[in-house]
Amino acid sequence: MADLPPSIEIGEEGPREGFQIEKGPIATADKITVIDALSATGLKHIQVGSFVSPKLVPGWADAEAVFDGFTPATGVTYEALWFNAAGLQRALAFHHKLNLVGGIALSASEAFSRKNLNRDRLGQIEAMRRQTQAHLLADVPVKRIGIMAAFGCNYGGDIAPARVIATIEDGLAIAREAGITIKRLSLADTMGWATPARVSRLIGEVRSRWPEFELSLHLHDTRGLGIANAAEGLRLGVRRFDSTVAGLGGCPFAGQPGAPGNIATEELVLLCEELGVATGVKLDALIEVGRLAERIVGRTLPSTLLRAGSLAALRRQAQ
Amino acid sequence: MADLPPSIEIGEEGPREGFQIEKGPIATADKITVIDALSATGLKHIQVGSFVSPKLVPGWADAEAVFDGFTPATGVTYEALWFNAAGLQRALAFHHKLNLVGGIALSASEAFSRKNLNRDRLGQIEAMRRQTQAHLLADVPVKRIGIMAAFGCNYGGDIAPARVIATIEDGLAIAREAGITIKRLSLADTMGWATPARVSRLIGEVRSRWPEFELSLHLHDTRGLGIANAAEGLRLGVRRFDSTVAGLGGCPFAGQPGAPGNIATEELVLLCEELGVATGVKLDALIEVGRLAERIVGRTLPSTLLRAGSLAALRRQAQ
Repeated sequence: MADLPPSIEIGEEGPREGFQIEKGPIATADKITVIDALSATGLKHIQVGSFVSPKLVPGWADAEAVFDGFTPATGVTYEALWFNAAGLQRALAFHHKLNLVGGIALSASEAFSRKNLNRDRLGQIEAMRRQTQAHLLADVPVKRIGIMAAFGCNYGGDIAPARVIATIEDGLAIAREAGITIKRLSLADTMGWATPARVSRLIGEVRSRWPEFELSLHLHDTRGLGIANAAEGLRLGVRRFDSTVAGLGGCPFAGQPGAPGNIATEELVLLCEELGVATGVKLDALIEVGRLAERIVGRTLPSTLLRAGSLAALRRQAQ
Repeated sequence: MADLPPSIEIGEEGPREGFQIEKGPIATADKITVIDALSATGLKHIQVGSFVSPKLVPGWADAEAVFDGFTPATGVTYEALWFNAAGLQRALAFHHKLNLVGGIALSASEAFSRKNLNRDRLGQIEAMRRQTQAHLLADVPVKRIGIMAAFGCNYGGDIAPARVIATIEDGLAIAREAGITIKRLSLADTMGWATPARVSRLIGEVRSRWPEFELSLHLHDTRGLGIANAAEGLRLGVRRFDSTVAGLGGCPFAGQPGAPGNIATEELVLLCEELGVATGVKLDALIEVGRLAERIVGRTLPSTLLRAGSLAALRRQAQ
């Protein structure tokens, strides 16, 4: 498998995604238990939670208590998510525990932008301009562009790579205007439209246009192809992936009850480690955290590997 | 994606696998309903059921009634599974409805052979010699060799490609002795140990040794890598895959309750069709059969795609 990287970085988003979408309520102490347990698995980047409106996202009404309560581990960076100035202010209160980094988030599908962000393309560009200014005023660096719906859209259908390229250009124009340098492009399969062929084509087109950027894949397993798409990303040398332990989270879009969201971190780790790509994660420990998360949310989570366990114990027994 | 075939054949094994492993009892009429519904999806090869001991496999105690009751569709071949002379005799009674084909089944892992078949390597070779003779005496052609545990084994650990090659040679020796010509080699990931790299390596080694054989992959999704492994098979030009609608079936091996067995046919079809590889299957119809099967067995089946549905309706709405 040609360009397999020697190692990858994983952005663990399980706590933020999972505790937001579950019916709950999930106890603050349980959220902290999962975050602290993740810190002990070897994961190096953990997105702890969201500073969002408690009316819109009741699952994160206790954000302050969770960010206050978790115990940072050495060598692990913790991140938060926010969408406006109020959220940013709340995040800033935890600057001693968090790696505060801003991003420019745009959708390659205008239909998705309208439906999910309630803004058209120009409206979203304007919102990101203002947010970038707010970040810089608060000394929060902005180094990433994230492209939602980069592989297809439940509302807009197929998304041509040219549309993604144009959306990245929108993001780069915002960055130029603000005088900042982008380091990473994140391509998100927000609604589960990616296939290995689409991953290959889009990465090829983005790379040939901008060979200087680090690429990141944010993949969903909505239709069962998530890990196949991750394998394609690895094959092309992508070194950064987002995922959620146990497949925490889900697919909030219409007509897909019970469909998974993000790929499961333990499946990504199994894939990598068995391919010889280092992740730094202790897989069996991570699987145990996944099982803990499943007990806490009280429903069967999407991860397949949670049922079967890793190959390590079987290998030991077989010797 | 280099050697993608223009089309593939799918061996649908859902009825046989699923109705065997479910706690049931599942009504004979329900089994027939699923088989007849599968016949209308465009699938061309359906394994209907097993002629096995009703004491050992109560789920197939009604095999005769099911084989009697289903309605064969034009252009679809129906198969059955049996493991001994008594099973063969029962299958022969349905020769007018079935494509009766025998196979030489060997395990690349002797530990699996002992544990699951209760025979050592030589014992299994001897059993297959006798079974091949029984098939030929009954005018049932033998054209396939199937290798179980070809990618790894819960009891024997990792399986080197050289072990698989040696096991295929055992099978070819049986074939030579019986004067038959093998057409197809089926490589089975019986316990979910395959990765894209192992698929690629094993297919490479088998092909370079025996370029004349048609290769078939029988993949399990026990640890979430099943579809990634199928994508690797497609990339290498493999043209035949086994799978089960909705992921019917399971993993009967110790310590893996709830782990999936075979890859889900609808996820395989989605992968293929989105890659431009024709399957002849009407995906939305197949998804409906999967949902029907799920209602009949009364538990959530492993297929991810059943929750989200295909992209076709979303594409139509987006236009």
